Amino acid sequence: MDTPNRQENSGALVAGVDGVHAGRKPSLDPLCRLLSSELERVNQLIVQRMQSPVALIPELAGHIVAGGGKRLRPMLTLGCARLCGYRGGRHIALAAAVEFIHTATLLHDDVVDASNLRRGRDTANAVWGNKPPILVGDFLFSRSFELMVADGSLRVLEILSRASSVIAEGEVLQLMTANDTRTSEAAYLAVIQAKTAELFAAASRIGAVMAERPQEEEEALDRFGRNLGIAFQLVDDMLDFSSHQSELGKSIGNDFRDGKVTLPVLVAFARGDKGERAFWRRTIEEQDQRAGDLQQAIHLVEQRGGIAETLSRARSYAATAIGALSIFRDGSERRALIDAAGFATERGF
Amino acid sequence: MDTPNRQENSGALVAGVDGVHAGRKPSLDPLCRLLSSELERVNQLIVQRMQSPVALIPELAGHIVAGGGKRLRPMLTLGCARLCGYRGGRHIALAAAVEFIHTATLLHDDVVDASNLRRGRDTANAVWGNKPPILVGDFLFSRSFELMVADGSLRVLEILSRASSVIAEGEVLQLMTANDTRTSEAAYLAVIQAKTAELFAAASRIGAVMAERPQEEEEALDRFGRNLGIAFQLVDDMLDFSSHQSELGKSIGNDFRDGKVTLPVLVAFARGDKGERAFWRRTIEEQDQRAGDLQQAIHLVEQRGGIAETLSRARSYAATAIGALSIFRDGSERRALIDAAGFATERGF
Repeated sequence: MDTPNRQENSGALVAGVDGVHAGRKPSLDPLCRLLSSELERVNQLIVQRMQSPVALIPELAGHIVAGGGKRLRPMLTLGCARLCGYRGGRHIALAAAVEFIHTATLLHDDVVDASNLRRGRDTANAVWGNKPPILVGDFLFSRSFELMVADGSLRVLEILSRASSVIAEGEVLQLMTANDTRTSEAAYLAVIQAKTAELFAAASRIGAVMAERPQEEEEALDRFGRNLGIAFQLVDDMLDFSSHQSELGKSIGNDFRDGKVTLPVLVAFARGDKGERAFWRRTIEEQDQRAGDLQQAIHLVEQRGGIAETLSRARSYAATAIGALSIFRDGSERRALIDAAGFATERGF
Repeated sequence: MDTPNRQENSGALVAGVDGVHAGRKPSLDPLCRLLSSELERVNQLIVQRMQSPVALIPELAGHIVAGGGKRLRPMLTLGCARLCGYRGGRHIALAAAVEFIHTATLLHDDVVDASNLRRGRDTANAVWGNKPPILVGDFLFSRSFELMVADGSLRVLEILSRASSVIAEGEVLQLMTANDTRTSEAAYLAVIQAKTAELFAAASRIGAVMAERPQEEEEALDRFGRNLGIAFQLVDDMLDFSSHQSELGKSIGNDFRDGKVTLPVLVAFARGDKGERAFWRRTIEEQDQRAGDLQQAIHLVEQRGGIAETLSRARSYAATAIGALSIFRDGSERRALIDAAGFATERGF
């Protein structure tokens, strides 16, 4: 696990935010614009490779693929390949492979969490029940490896098969820490490092592998992706307790209802008084949740600084991510990736 | 799909059964004896590679791995490699990779089927609920690819990633044909071809790939494994309606309870009278099952020749499998593989 070096990185962040964005809010738009034609080819390949004579497969896969994800992970692969000066066409298929791994884990996650909504739409399990998403997840996962095998790089296969194992380990570890307010911050960080940051790291790293860049650049991109992934997940976990999100009509409180022990809860629990700890034990450990409990949880997280602390940590990881790009030359690719890292912590969705 | 050529293959079967086994019942024992030290190394590698710092993973994986499977698929990889004269050590890791794919699909299958018993023991989902087996299945699947990547053969990766996709397609197709007595025999055969025979074919084929044998031998081993896999699944489906199994105290009737439309049911339905078809529609399509229905189903399957017909087809596929081995030289490996193919149809478990 990388620990952010605040001193080193606050400079890079300032350079990133002030120098590049000149006061405006960081955004994914520059990266989307830069990669729009390549991203279009990735989307076409995804649709093409999720086909099967078994009609339910493209139907169900299409439901989640069309569900309006940000395509952040494939954009990292495309963007990092370009940052490394890659000029070939392999990054399209590998970006699609990365998105297939992500989509397979989403399908399985939603079954495991019994989630009914994702990005404001019914989940696949809400529409088709649990059985098809488990099996279609397996299919997409296999398809991902078929894409990588067709690409033919054993190094890429090594990075992404390793990432897939680590993701599964992270998901199991998350199950084991659920409903346990004694979860340590280290255990929480190990979960998000594995379930989220590992794929961000792998998706970024393979950009340097494709471009046959030196080990130093591979490691820099791994560090970029990994820290960005941690920042991204911290903000995800924070937004789940955001009263502002709630006012916007967005779905919140899913982690609370599932008894997931995320950083906002850990902070509120650690800083809470006896009565507050009893509240968390009842709602998270005993899963005894009543009307008004979510509002109370949001209130306690906010009041005890859980939102501010989580956001501050996320910004620190994002700064480390941006700092990792310092060895690459300045240009539209680097600026767009820096902007994407800034977006990870300043986004409202 | 290969169709068995009865004329061509009955000769081979007679040669196999009469010439080699001299009247005794075919058995897996010769293959087990021949491969015992290699199989021991496969088992050690499986235990070693299912380890993880996340304790639940080896615990749950150990439960199913130790659950007394026949290790048929890894034995095919080991046996076919030896048949092709392979003398290296790569077959150990690839046999373990094949078994990991199989184990991952078993974990997911048991969740999808809500099965409580496998091989007389509690299933992982019966012990831990549905969530851990979904995620540990994903872990084992990833580990399988890590083993293949470490082996380094893109051709093997291509064969096994393709097989994994086809297995998932077969499982989804099986879901779509469940509870539907209008399922055609062709659709049923497509399901078992995909969900079972594809991995048997791949496990066998990679023996020739490792030994760098010509395309003709690769294809012969694919044909051997594929037809053996179909025979094996036909017998599995037959045993689920076997009153003899029931007398032995073995678990039967799982497919019936799940509403799976297998060949014994298709035969009994096709040959049944109006009342019998109404019985199948009520129990399989409407899933309205009452006390005594399983006994009635077993009776109808037996009476209408569903057992005999399924076994006869299975023997025909097994004969085709044995015939495919004719291009290889006679020897202990070929005799043991022929015996294993005979065992597939004459087994009682």
